[in-house]
Amino acid sequence: MRCEIVAVGTELLLGQIVDTNSAWIGEQLALAGIDCHRHTAVGDNPDRMLAAFSEALERSDAVIVTGGLGPTQDDITRDVIADLLGVELVRDESLVARIEAVFGGRGRPMPANNLRQADLPVGARAIEQMPGTAPGLVCPVGASTGFDGDDSPKVVYAVPGVPWEMHQMVEGTILPDLKRRAGISSVIRSRTLRTWGRSESGLAEDLANEIERIDSDGGATIAFLASGMEGLKVRLTAKAATDAQADALLADGEARVRAIVGDIVFGMDDQTMESVVLDLLVAQGLRLATAESLTGGMIGTRLTEVPGASRAFVGSVVAYDSGVKQSLLGVPDGPVVSEEAVVAMALGVCDLLRADVSVAVTGVAGPEPQDGHEPGTVWMATCVDGEVEADRTLWPFDRPRIRQFTVITVLAALRRRLLARQDG
Amino acid sequence: MRCEIVAVGTELLLGQIVDTNSAWIGEQLALAGIDCHRHTAVGDNPDRMLAAFSEALERSDAVIVTGGLGPTQDDITRDVIADLLGVELVRDESLVARIEAVFGGRGRPMPANNLRQADLPVGARAIEQMPGTAPGLVCPVGASTGFDGDDSPKVVYAVPGVPWEMHQMVEGTILPDLKRRAGISSVIRSRTLRTWGRSESGLAEDLANEIERIDSDGGATIAFLASGMEGLKVRLTAKAATDAQADALLADGEARVRAIVGDIVFGMDDQTMESVVLDLLVAQGLRLATAESLTGGMIGTRLTEVPGASRAFVGSVVAYDSGVKQSLLGVPDGPVVSEEAVVAMALGVCDLLRADVSVAVTGVAGPEPQDGHEPGTVWMATCVDGEVEADRTLWPFDRPRIRQFTVITVLAALRRRLLARQDG
Repeated sequence: MRCEIVAVGTELLLGQIVDTNSAWIGEQLALAGIDCHRHTAVGDNPDRMLAAFSEALERSDAVIVTGGLGPTQDDITRDVIADLLGVELVRDESLVARIEAVFGGRGRPMPANNLRQADLPVGARAIEQMPGTAPGLVCPVGASTGFDGDDSPKVVYAVPGVPWEMHQMVEGTILPDLKRRAGISSVIRSRTLRTWGRSESGLAEDLANEIERIDSDGGATIAFLASGMEGLKVRLTAKAATDAQADALLADGEARVRAIVGDIVFGMDDQTMESVVLDLLVAQGLRLATAESLTGGMIGTRLTEVPGASRAFVGSVVAYDSGVKQSLLGVPDGPVVSEEAVVAMALGVCDLLRADVSVAVTGVAGPEPQDGHEPGTVWMATCVDGEVEADRTLWPFDRPRIRQFTVITVLAALRRRLLARQDG
Repeated sequence: MRCEIVAVGTELLLGQIVDTNSAWIGEQLALAGIDCHRHTAVGDNPDRMLAAFSEALERSDAVIVTGGLGPTQDDITRDVIADLLGVELVRDESLVARIEAVFGGRGRPMPANNLRQADLPVGARAIEQMPGTAPGLVCPVGASTGFDGDDSPKVVYAVPGVPWEMHQMVEGTILPDLKRRAGISSVIRSRTLRTWGRSESGLAEDLANEIERIDSDGGATIAFLASGMEGLKVRLTAKAATDAQADALLADGEARVRAIVGDIVFGMDDQTMESVVLDLLVAQGLRLATAESLTGGMIGTRLTEVPGASRAFVGSVVAYDSGVKQSLLGVPDGPVVSEEAVVAMALGVCDLLRADVSVAVTGVAGPEPQDGHEPGTVWMATCVDGEVEADRTLWPFDRPRIRQFTVITVLAALRRRLLARQDG
């Protein structure tokens, strides 16, 4: 089973938006065990769309078209697919009712333009998931000439370009339909171990024997993905006949990876360093404050991206100016990029905000040196139960990455101390 | 002149990386006045690459291939282009020397694999710009059969997939070569007016007459781009015979747009709301502090993304917990999502951090309601010369956008007050 992706939209060709949809769908197809040999982007032009759809369908068994399903005159994906299949568009009254219901739910009347979205090529059906006003389409090729829709040799799917609408349709309808058509009964599942504290090449070295073993003996495969402030991801992927067997392979793979580099694994899948730290704080009934200089508030920003952060996060003092470090946090006169300063910041913010635990950072984000320190020089501290631990780093990065790496690194240090406190 | 883009790399099809290169090149082609009707992505497979290159070359006058120019066995763009043109690859000794020089400059010997990067299809030349170790290629089609390279009817370019290497080659060699081939002597220039305070459809309505006038009388064209926390961009684009004429068209267009919606234009091109506010503060010799609740430090984070922010930004108090609002900022007992609370925060942080000017925000980021207020309820305040102005908003958005829109909106309010102060 081969499936191609065609993204529709002149704005893609003009570079006004980047096509993230094709990458996302490509990843889902790969995880489902379906080959994808080409992605194409075309503008909102009927002849060029028809050529792209038809070429893709010739090379492949299935084509997923994204975009061009809106209510405006530019949105012609429905029309071009009808042309491609040699059938008419027919208005589906049950779809009219569903679209009207979406508008009604938002307390607005449906504009007449949106009626176009209820048109279906003959033989096609609407995708059940419809999170917005644009229905997606399943269009079996040859359905009008006697094939049963489900058994047609080829199929064209159409989904909106809005990512969250598209995701639901691909996951809910298209991937299961493709797997059924391909006779794929095997399942592919993956899980991600999130790590911090080792470079990509270092991890690859640590896990080289394990990767070699998988090559000869089988098991969950391993891939690395460096993700900036999100850490370095180790993804395990397993293929098996059933969910349970795939999960067993993943569990075995995870245990093997953890046995080698478990000390730097901070979370799984969607867990972030922030969410993991907040969970530990809540479990131990501790309140966290941060004292930030070069990060300007970024540690607090990241922590409060997590809904419910208020269960453990009290607040921050962003002491960008040296005077604020001294007057508010009790940093003594003298150099502010120093161990003495960062220790005072960590203690001072616990006092000031009545917190049990704190992190503090001070340093040079660049691009200019400061007080004789080169950009990337950063002192980081954690305070737990009144005890401060501080460390100095020299990041060989630019301003944005110096700040980002400081955030995840100081939170990683706090995580270790909270784990030790819990175990100790 | 039509030019297509083909991106090479199995990692693109698998969704391991998103193809930002095609979008960037598409934008450059549009700005240069060259049509681009299709983007294609293919994996590192010789037959499928050859098919994609050859189809693109049939439809278009020029093809830009990105990726597959590295030193490994997977990097076969050079080989496939030679196949496409029906010529041999020949090692270019001057390129060998240039690549060796790059390694020498980094103090390392050149691995033998990198010699492959010095192979050129017969009739092709290396692109002059070579910021990495991978040479780019200009491959005139038919050069081997008597065409002079510069006058061949069609041409294939190849550039590395590494964005900064690719950018230099496209700007330095490919765009000028395409324009020369297309006989384009005109220049296309653009400038962006950055706005905040009006929706995209509202702006389109305001400027409808002007857009209609441009359609009939000519002049710089107008396009809108909603950019979240970066504001809503109005891009003017002008085509003319010379730079000076294009600039004159842009200046005229800018004056017309400003005459209609000038009150919401906060900056030009790369200026951000943060950089504009910081510049105003520096010009007036004022020191800024922020008091943040639902934004968790994001206002300070954005301000300190600007190098040199310390000239005006003193620091922040992130009072996520109600107790911190009261103990540190002097917020009275009672509801913390209120005008009284935000006014106290704005005054309190000026006092505490010895600042001349402040912004303060308190509200509900969601997803859960708080104290009877629904998510999106936000109070924002600015304090200038001891005078506080406060305003309430109800954002109909999700948690990330509620926070982002709060940041730019409160800074926009401060900008207005600083401008009034300067003029008054």
